Amino acid sequence: MTEVPLQRSTALAQLAATEGLAASVAFSPEAVFYLSGAAIMTQRILPDRLAIVVTSPDQEPTLIVCNIEEDLARTHSAIRDIRQYVEYARSPIDVLVEVLGERCPKGSRIGLELGYLNAAYCRSLEERTRDAEFAYDDVTGLIRQLRMHKDAEELAVLERGFLATDRAIRSAFEASHIGDTEKQLGARIADSLLANGADGVGWILVGFGETSHLVHQLPTDKVMKQGDLVRIDCGAAFNGYFSDLARSCFAGTPSEHQRSVYARLVAGHDRIIETMAPGVQACAVFEEAVRIYRELGIPFRDDEPHCGHSIGLGIHEHPVLNPFERIELAPGMVFCVEPPYFAPTGEFFHTEDLVVITEDGRRVVSRSADWVEPLLIGS
Amino acid sequence: MTEVPLQRSTALAQLAATEGLAASVAFSPEAVFYLSGAAIMTQRILPDRLAIVVTSPDQEPTLIVCNIEEDLARTHSAIRDIRQYVEYARSPIDVLVEVLGERCPKGSRIGLELGYLNAAYCRSLEERTRDAEFAYDDVTGLIRQLRMHKDAEELAVLERGFLATDRAIRSAFEASHIGDTEKQLGARIADSLLANGADGVGWILVGFGETSHLVHQLPTDKVMKQGDLVRIDCGAAFNGYFSDLARSCFAGTPSEHQRSVYARLVAGHDRIIETMAPGVQACAVFEEAVRIYRELGIPFRDDEPHCGHSIGLGIHEHPVLNPFERIELAPGMVFCVEPPYFAPTGEFFHTEDLVVITEDGRRVVSRSADWVEPLLIGS
Repeated sequence: MTEVPLQRSTALAQLAATEGLAASVAFSPEAVFYLSGAAIMTQRILPDRLAIVVTSPDQEPTLIVCNIEEDLARTHSAIRDIRQYVEYARSPIDVLVEVLGERCPKGSRIGLELGYLNAAYCRSLEERTRDAEFAYDDVTGLIRQLRMHKDAEELAVLERGFLATDRAIRSAFEASHIGDTEKQLGARIADSLLANGADGVGWILVGFGETSHLVHQLPTDKVMKQGDLVRIDCGAAFNGYFSDLARSCFAGTPSEHQRSVYARLVAGHDRIIETMAPGVQACAVFEEAVRIYRELGIPFRDDEPHCGHSIGLGIHEHPVLNPFERIELAPGMVFCVEPPYFAPTGEFFHTEDLVVITEDGRRVVSRSADWVEPLLIGS
Repeated sequence: MTEVPLQRSTALAQLAATEGLAASVAFSPEAVFYLSGAAIMTQRILPDRLAIVVTSPDQEPTLIVCNIEEDLARTHSAIRDIRQYVEYARSPIDVLVEVLGERCPKGSRIGLELGYLNAAYCRSLEERTRDAEFAYDDVTGLIRQLRMHKDAEELAVLERGFLATDRAIRSAFEASHIGDTEKQLGARIADSLLANGADGVGWILVGFGETSHLVHQLPTDKVMKQGDLVRIDCGAAFNGYFSDLARSCFAGTPSEHQRSVYARLVAGHDRIIETMAPGVQACAVFEEAVRIYRELGIPFRDDEPHCGHSIGLGIHEHPVLNPFERIELAPGMVFCVEPPYFAPTGEFFHTEDLVVITEDGRRVVSRSADWVEPLLIGS
């Protein structure tokens, strides 16, 4: 068990104190893992079953979990003060009210992760602490601010996960044949992800030909035929951190036009990545992507919301490479770069890579092999 | 595309109208799928990217999605009025404010799914509609009330999913050997779930021997050895509906004591299920479980929160079989029945089955074969 989560809790408490907050309270699976070291998977599948980390300056953090998760929390968490509640018998908010009462004088300003906590729980907390006259601010942004800078250990986990995911996609493509269904290819990727060391599969999207534009449709029984663009977008969990990669290839022999689009997109992708370095604003990368696509003669959708996002314990993390994000890239930040191209044919050409910002530029860490030549699925 | 989601939207609007609400607004992946027919998987992995259904009496429902999901929504949703927003450029709450403004006169009471919507979005909505003097109530309970009664189509999907999951677990057990790791068994189950028709894997928990008490620990590199209790808890998605099954078996030859505990638990499980019928309160089933365990000489943990839960588009749905739930079972309700036994050895004996309440009793629908004799994994 590492002490790193405790250092993060201290950092959050100190950052919050500079904003006048007596305590900060985290609720999301990402923040709870980050601040405690405990991966409580039911936070994702049973969101009503709250797990909570409370931090304040000069005090040890407290972890609140339901009693079903107590053994797991004591085994995996760096936090020593663990409180429990029995679901249905007692609300987690009750325990939180107690912990805040111990830590915060009447009239304190307290930070909550309002970007995650549901409004019903929030109303209940406000009601039950009316006498204490607490005022609640949002610390979602402060937690993001800490989490956007990855340390060496986080970078190592991400790099391992993305390389494994790339290998898994490649070997699934190589084991596939014209005539396979989207579902068969999807199952092959799941298998391959787990064989390559993933702790669990996040999602698997497979699109053949003209239906690939239904960006997030689950795999269907559609059959792969000669000339289809085959698009994969998948992610898996590695030590709590997510991978997220997209790759496109062709069934059989692509047309000259498909081949030309693919070649231009691969070149454009690398050119966009080359614009990324410490000090460059996130929005500038987006603007460069639009410019580079224009130069390559590839339409960039007017209403494209972003061309990439950070990633880590969550799947879309901040900063996002969108037209409004003025934050400057810095060493230790990571980005999934994925400028899309939706062809008039309904084909969604999709390539995504993980880029780590370094002191002197950037590194692409998600390629187990070269994707310059399109991979061709045989019959 | 079926019109059923539109009928459900109408039912929700009418139910809400009896409580004086001018509109109801759903945000959760479960409710949005239920009311629209569109499964938007990014709702689960990117919760900030809202999808929203607005219903009111005598008006067609409206579906709000981000532009990335618009094609998918138009392809799969029964709702005709689909509005979009471009992420980062415009908040989904902006579009919701517009839709509510079209439908609801100043001073209306409006129902929100506060059990899902995050507090930051909720605050933003309250702020932006201050001039309209809307009052916001919680309709989480009303939506649950509709969703707890499954129609014939939902029951058919659930039955198919649970049978497939049972088959997948059984064939994974049968393909396993002493010396396998938890991760290997987990990967085999994932493979088997997808081969048995699952659209995606929800979660896979595998525990060998004395660490099975860490209820929700992900599979590790721990090696299966002779005499280990092998516990599986897994779920997968079928047409948007989840399965959730737990099975326990043994590696090699169990001890006499393990065999006796297993036999009593299997018998007890069936006796608990036999107490379930229309008109029986959910809490009474819990009380019966405690009584039956006592008769069988198996300790029932004092702090056990429940012995079963409903399931459907979500994993723990209402009603829950806990000591406080007074709702009466009714035909069309479904329950995952899973009274646990945590042995002093650290072994977690876990069996879970899906029970459908019928006009004249109940049916167990999750057994592809008999689990009376423990399955034994060979060397």
